Amino acid sequence: MPVIAAYLYRDGRRVREVDIGERVDCPTDRSEFVWIGLSDPCAEDVMALQALYKLHPLAVEDSLKDGQLPKVDIYGDQLFLIARTAQLDDGVIAYGQTAVFLGHSHIITVRQGSTRSHLPLRKHLEESPDLLGQGTDYVLHAVLDFIVDGYIPLVESLEEEVSAMEQHTLDAFLGRTEIARIFTLRRQLTRFGHILIPMEEVARKLAQTNHPCIDAEARHYFGDVLDHVRRVETMNTGLREVLTSVFEFSNLMEQQRTGAITRQLAAWAAILAVPTALAGIYGMNFEHMPELHSVYGYPAVMSIIAVICLTLYRRFRKTGWL
Amino acid sequence: MPVIAAYLYRDGRRVREVDIGERVDCPTDRSEFVWIGLSDPCAEDVMALQALYKLHPLAVEDSLKDGQLPKVDIYGDQLFLIARTAQLDDGVIAYGQTAVFLGHSHIITVRQGSTRSHLPLRKHLEESPDLLGQGTDYVLHAVLDFIVDGYIPLVESLEEEVSAMEQHTLDAFLGRTEIARIFTLRRQLTRFGHILIPMEEVARKLAQTNHPCIDAEARHYFGDVLDHVRRVETMNTGLREVLTSVFEFSNLMEQQRTGAITRQLAAWAAILAVPTALAGIYGMNFEHMPELHSVYGYPAVMSIIAVICLTLYRRFRKTGWL
Amino acid sequence: MPVIAAYLYRDGRRVREVDIGERVDCPTDRSEFVWIGLSDPCAEDVMALQALYKLHPLAVEDSLKDGQLPKVDIYGDQLFLIARTAQLDDGVIAYGQTAVFLGHSHIITVRQGSTRSHLPLRKHLEESPDLLGQGTDYVLHAVLDFIVDGYIPLVESLEEEVSAMEQHTLDAFLGRTEIARIFTLRRQLTRFGHILIPMEEVARKLAQTNHPCIDAEARHYFGDVLDHVRRVETMNTGLREVLTSVFEFSNLMEQQRTGAITRQLAAWAAILAVPTALAGIYGMNFEHMPELHSVYGYPAVMSIIAVICLTLYRRFRKTGWL
Amino acid sequence: MPVIAAYLYRDGRRVREVDIGERVDCPTDRSEFVWIGLSDPCAEDVMALQALYKLHPLAVEDSLKDGQLPKVDIYGDQLFLIARTAQLDDGVIAYGQTAVFLGHSHIITVRQGSTRSHLPLRKHLEESPDLLGQGTDYVLHAVLDFIVDGYIPLVESLEEEVSAMEQHTLDAFLGRTEIARIFTLRRQLTRFGHILIPMEEVARKLAQTNHPCIDAEARHYFGDVLDHVRRVETMNTGLREVLTSVFEFSNLMEQQRTGAITRQLAAWAAILAVPTALAGIYGMNFEHMPELHSVYGYPAVMSIIAVICLTLYRRFRKTGWL
Amino acid sequence: MPVIAAYLYRDGRRVREVDIGERVDCPTDRSEFVWIGLSDPCAEDVMALQALYKLHPLAVEDSLKDGQLPKVDIYGDQLFLIARTAQLDDGVIAYGQTAVFLGHSHIITVRQGSTRSHLPLRKHLEESPDLLGQGTDYVLHAVLDFIVDGYIPLVESLEEEVSAMEQHTLDAFLGRTEIARIFTLRRQLTRFGHILIPMEEVARKLAQTNHPCIDAEARHYFGDVLDHVRRVETMNTGLREVLTSVFEFSNLMEQQRTGAITRQLAAWAAILAVPTALAGIYGMNFEHMPELHSVYGYPAVMSIIAVICLTLYRRFRKTGWL
Ligand SMILES: [Mg+2]
Ligand SMILES: [Mg+2]
Ligand SMILES: [Mg+2]
Ligand SMILES: [Mg+2]
Ligand SMILES: [Mg+2]
Ligand SMILES: [Mg+2]
Ligand SMILES: [Mg+2]
Ligand SMILES: [Mg+2]
Ligand SMILES: [Mg+2]
Ligand SMILES: [Mg+2]
Ligand SMILES: [Mg+2]
Ligand SMILES: [Mg+2]
Ligand SMILES: [Mg+2]
Ligand SMILES: [Mg+2]
Ligand SMILES: [Mg+2]
Ligand SMILES: [Mg+2]
Ligand SMILES: [Mg+2]
Ligand SMILES: [Mg+2]
Ligand SMILES: [Mg+2]
Ligand SMILES: [Mg+2]
Ligand SMILES: [Mg+2]
Ligand SMILES: [Mg+2]
Ligand SMILES: [Mg+2]
Ligand SMILES: [Mg+2]
Ligand SMILES: [Mg+2]
Ligand SMILES: [Mg+2]
Ligand SMILES: [Mg+2]
Ligand SMILES: [Mg+2]
Ligand SMILES: [Mg+2]
Ligand SMILES: [Mg+2]
Ligand SMILES: [Mg+2]
Repeated sequence: MPVIAAYLYRDGRRVREVDIGERVDCPTDRSEFVWIGLSDPCAEDVMALQALYKLHPLAVEDSLKDGQLPKVDIYGDQLFLIARTAQLDDGVIAYGQTAVFLGHSHIITVRQGSTRSHLPLRKHLEESPDLLGQGTDYVLHAVLDFIVDGYIPLVESLEEEVSAMEQHTLDAFLGRTEIARIFTLRRQLTRFGHILIPMEEVARKLAQTNHPCIDAEARHYFGDVLDHVRRVETMNTGLREVLTSVFEFSNLMEQQRTGAITRQLAAWAAILAVPTALAGIYGMNFEHMPELHSVYGYPAVMSIIAVICLTLYRRFRKTGWL
Repeated sequence: MPVIAAYLYRDGRRVREVDIGERVDCPTDRSEFVWIGLSDPCAEDVMALQALYKLHPLAVEDSLKDGQLPKVDIYGDQLFLIARTAQLDDGVIAYGQTAVFLGHSHIITVRQGSTRSHLPLRKHLEESPDLLGQGTDYVLHAVLDFIVDGYIPLVESLEEEVSAMEQHTLDAFLGRTEIARIFTLRRQLTRFGHILIPMEEVARKLAQTNHPCIDAEARHYFGDVLDHVRRVETMNTGLREVLTSVFEFSNLMEQQRTGAITRQLAAWAAILAVPTALAGIYGMNFEHMPELHSVYGYPAVMSIIAVICLTLYRRFRKTGWL
Repeated sequence: MPVIAAYLYRDGRRVREVDIGERVDCPTDRSEFVWIGLSDPCAEDVMALQALYKLHPLAVEDSLKDGQLPKVDIYGDQLFLIARTAQLDDGVIAYGQTAVFLGHSHIITVRQGSTRSHLPLRKHLEESPDLLGQGTDYVLHAVLDFIVDGYIPLVESLEEEVSAMEQHTLDAFLGRTEIARIFTLRRQLTRFGHILIPMEEVARKLAQTNHPCIDAEARHYFGDVLDHVRRVETMNTGLREVLTSVFEFSNLMEQQRTGAITRQLAAWAAILAVPTALAGIYGMNFEHMPELHSVYGYPAVMSIIAVICLTLYRRFRKTGWL
Repeated sequence: MPVIAAYLYRDGRRVREVDIGERVDCPTDRSEFVWIGLSDPCAEDVMALQALYKLHPLAVEDSLKDGQLPKVDIYGDQLFLIARTAQLDDGVIAYGQTAVFLGHSHIITVRQGSTRSHLPLRKHLEESPDLLGQGTDYVLHAVLDFIVDGYIPLVESLEEEVSAMEQHTLDAFLGRTEIARIFTLRRQLTRFGHILIPMEEVARKLAQTNHPCIDAEARHYFGDVLDHVRRVETMNTGLREVLTSVFEFSNLMEQQRTGAITRQLAAWAAILAVPTALAGIYGMNFEHMPELHSVYGYPAVMSIIAVICLTLYRRFRKTGWL
Repeated sequence: MPVIAAYLYRDGRRVREVDIGERVDCPTDRSEFVWIGLSDPCAEDVMALQALYKLHPLAVEDSLKDGQLPKVDIYGDQLFLIARTAQLDDGVIAYGQTAVFLGHSHIITVRQGSTRSHLPLRKHLEESPDLLGQGTDYVLHAVLDFIVDGYIPLVESLEEEVSAMEQHTLDAFLGRTEIARIFTLRRQLTRFGHILIPMEEVARKLAQTNHPCIDAEARHYFGDVLDHVRRVETMNTGLREVLTSVFEFSNLMEQQRTGAITRQLAAWAAILAVPTALAGIYGMNFEHMPELHSVYGYPAVMSIIAVICLTLYRRFRKTGWL
């Protein structure tokens, strides 16, 4: 079902449904506009709209192909923009694309691969004719706001996981699975950052551009979207830095642990080498070894071994090796 | 108690208290203004002010929600800005938010989560009617200066801790708790840096923007705030670099120590292997081992062992392994 | 065969072949243009064109020497640009160069070291006289688009290899050959990045420059090329980051493995030192060792050894060393 | 002694001493100016000047407090600037501050914590009335030049130490003290860099700003100061990079050494395990061990041991482990 | 011999030699100019030229002191610039300096520490009066081109060495000398980069500046120099990145090797501990050890030892430790 919804609005109120092949002549006083929502449409659908609404062929092409980077293009008195949607799916960020064609009397959204429908958003806007009456630029703001709001649970969920990971690192040594998860997480955050930077640019352009489709008042609203993207971006950067720190910390801890064990190993090896070497000597089968015949030989050697071992043990304790 | 204080000022002197629901008509010659201070207010309070002072709904929304990044927004002849407060709380930086609505005849501050009251500041300003008489831009400067001054004990306290940590690293090996603290500290500094950079931008904008709410003379005062933020930022960056260096240094030292112990271990293993191997051989039970029957066998073997061990010991000392 | 093709076009349709030494006078209404394609030409060929089309000697020099960085130069009412081609050749990126001389009525392309012929592209354009009729700027766009499209299979193929490498790292330890391949791959990606950044600049300049050779409409097309370069650049940067992560992860895993083995080694050394030391003692040949004569001596010592070894073993298991 | 010197100059020649509380009316033709030098003055002294020369209170405040970052502030037709002085003190960089108030007919310098007096500089300038007659901007240049010239012996001394350290690293392994020194040195260079970057900005601003206090000709002189700061900054950055390289190199060398010793240790352990194991076996007290009774048993076992050990030794030599 | 050559040129042809103390009045139609080349001159020589050609004293000072960073200074209708020369000398980059004073009718070059004479360049230009007739800006271009061309063999030679090093790293383990060379090489490349960045800026400024000394046509030629510097800079950056990669790769390989040896060592220690421990037990001198008296005791123990050792050996092979 590629066409999700297509209605004509007058003064912020829904007037009637519109066919996507239908020519709608809105008055030039901007009191009316058409809002069409498509989801994974086939090329023909969008081609039909292209002729009716004078969409630029390059924009149509981009809207049909997922994987574009966020951007704003100006085509005369129309705007075209690409935004990327993101949601968490089993701990992995799944991306989608929303393309928007914006004119004075039309706004067409084309979603690709995104599973969050715009219908609740449309319903919510239709309940406030005052806002919807502000025109297509206000609808564009609402769509962008909707997309960026979708980033927030995602980044908050990742933040929780990163914090748990961080706490865990402080409490215990990380295993292979945990390190692999950190590695995967950091990758996701880096990729997300590659989306957020051009998204920020899109919001900034809309908040600053002087274009007939965007009223002065609407720019404040795009400024608000920009604030949200910046906040998500700051959180995202912060999480990436935490993971890098966790990596470094884990590294240093592991190295320290190996160092401590090497010292212990060395200490015990030294202590145990004493009875082994001495016993080896008195285990030799020379006929002429006077000590062997003495009654005090055995206890003497045992005492010597005990004294040396104890002295070594104490020294190692003192230097912190044991 | 959301409303902390609300007064009307004329020529820098307090005239009377003002009710937050009350319309106050100040003359256009800028001789009077209202200064209202709220702390963690409920939405209704701010909504009431919104209508009276024509605050922008987006600004009101931001003022009510903690966690915004510092920014300056221009709404016609009014300004809206967000600053972040920071104080040290048990070695952890606790953040708050102060939003300011600025007009010719009103300045409204909305604090969220910050525990430093503006009352002493207000009292201090009321004692200098000359300064307060300069208008709302001067009050804005005083509020920002107050917030940024709050950063200084924080960063100085962290500096002390970092210096102690640095000295400790040079004197001894770091334990797990200390490394974990370095790790936590660096995180805090990084996060603080994420606040300082937009705070610097806020101060720079105010020092450079040509806006009717900001007099030319007031810009010098915002330039002074900018100086303070820059200094804090330089200190913060410096501390982060020190901690990174401490990490690296500690790493290299630990590696060097493990290397030294590995060499010692190897040296002692070599030395002790000599009596063990030789004694093992003369501990064999072959009937036909001529040395065993010689009177000189035992002392000879013992001498050989001693000579080899001593030679090895000397060599290892010379190469610095022992 | 340096001259690949040279034709005169009128209103988007091929009129006749053109000799590279021939002067062609196109009308000033831009309805006609000459498109000449050369591949690894000798200096004389290009020199001949230089005089006929008033090419700048510096541009001619650059077009003849491979290894230039991408750039756009403006020579009066002509443009000169360098693009770099890239294709994967046995896992290694092979670079070539395409120089383009652009005027109102001529476009001359000079390929160096590139193996992808422009003939299919020319054929494709000749099938759409509408597009070809838009002039030399449209042909320039088509050539750049063709070059940038050549990057995509390359980067996708590298992405596949990098992903396989990444998965492999998570599953197993990397061997020397694999690490060497990661090292080589990262080198290639870095070098490719050194090409992509100036290519992005070339596309941006063409999309923004106000030059008589580039129509306003054509700029949208260069904007589209810019989008493609940016996407490739983002992918390329992402792949480089993955490889850096793989390096770090592999490093940490290797270190952890060595740590685990050191612990195992230490544990077994401790356990086996017990029978060795005790047996050594009872292997001494002292005449007066009362335990040796007791019937219970042997089983007692064996039991002591067993108990100590077992206790040690259990402890090591508990602390995770074994 | 806060007031170091205060004189009136006419046409580049000293006229008479001036009291800091005295009002001096210079003609508007710029032929006269007052040059006052203070060092660690008390607030009252500067306050007196503030009224007489219309200094801005914010500038006065900054001049009295050490630890400001370098900057240039424009207050109407006056300039205020902060520079930082640096000198080496027992291998540690000690910082001071010089604040300068500049007007058409006055230049006031306020030093804080700097031990290099401006008196020789003043004397030197008084000997060239031609230069001094160029006005207060030329004096400002001379003061900045004097401060920046103070950086050069500092950075050259550090360069010598860094080069010695670098050579030492190539020749031998670094000890703990040396690594600690590198660590401390790098910290100093980083901090110095934090001063140099705003100092560069100060010089650049003065070389480019169009301000009535700075003649066009004087800007060339500030450009010369800028050259010096840039050169110091490039040297400083270079030294920091060398120390980072020394760290990395030392790290890699230490790791390689530990690797080599681990291999040696492993090789000798393997070689010595042979006689130990074999001798152990023939040291067993079984009654029925035919070899023990053979005349050739002992020499045979000894030969086997010798052959195995020698073979192992040769193999280890060949693979480079020994 | 500080004065290398000094001639008057008219319409691109050499007219006569010029004395450096001689005043030459060229017509204002730019048909004549003087080209003077000095090498390591004494101050007096340049001072003489300063008066005759109205050179700025700051520029003269810079030209006399080696070690300046590349820059372009504008002194009214004259230009002054500093370039740095570089050549490889026993594997080390040796730097020199060329200062150029440029006016309508004069170009004076002052070389410091550079060993490449400009005489062949002058001879080459004198053979093309067409080019030389373009004026002093063309000569300036030729001098810069000559300097930048000198970078190319240098960077190519370093590239060869880096490639050999890289290949070597892939094939074998690096020794101390090789790592020290990498370390030294990287230092050289970093320092060279510190020269190339301001050289790029110099070329860019000349290619873009609107100055009476530089004709519009000449700017294309400086653009060509810019291309060369950029190419050298890209190569230089690439080489530095390769060396950093080689460092990292070598590090990881060394760590992996140590890991592999630790595993081998552990495996052999485990295998050899078996006969040692068992033989130790049967070497005890207890009177009541029934196994010792059995005929099957010896072969049984030997078989047990063999079986355990073999099993261990097989297991270790399977897990890849041996
Ligand atoms: Mg990123
Ligand atoms: Mg991306
Ligand atoms: Mg950003
Ligand atoms: Mg908001
Ligand atoms: Mg925000
Ligand atoms: Mg941000
Ligand atoms: Mg950082
Ligand atoms: Mg933050
Ligand atoms: Mg900053
Ligand atoms: Mg201040
Ligand atoms: Mg400052
Ligand atoms: Mg400051
Ligand atoms: Mg790159
Ligand atoms: Mg390249
Ligand atoms: Mg880019
Ligand atoms: Mg596209
Ligand atoms: Mg793209
Ligand atoms: Mg990009
Ligand atoms: Mg720095
Ligand atoms: Mg500083
Ligand atoms: Mg100079
Ligand atoms: Mg310099
Ligand atoms: Mg310079
Ligand atoms: Mg700099
Ligand atoms: Mg560099
Ligand atoms: Mg340099
Ligand atoms: Mg560059
Ligand atoms: Mg060229
Ligand atoms: Mg180039
Ligand atoms: Mg180039
Ligand atoms: Mg680095």
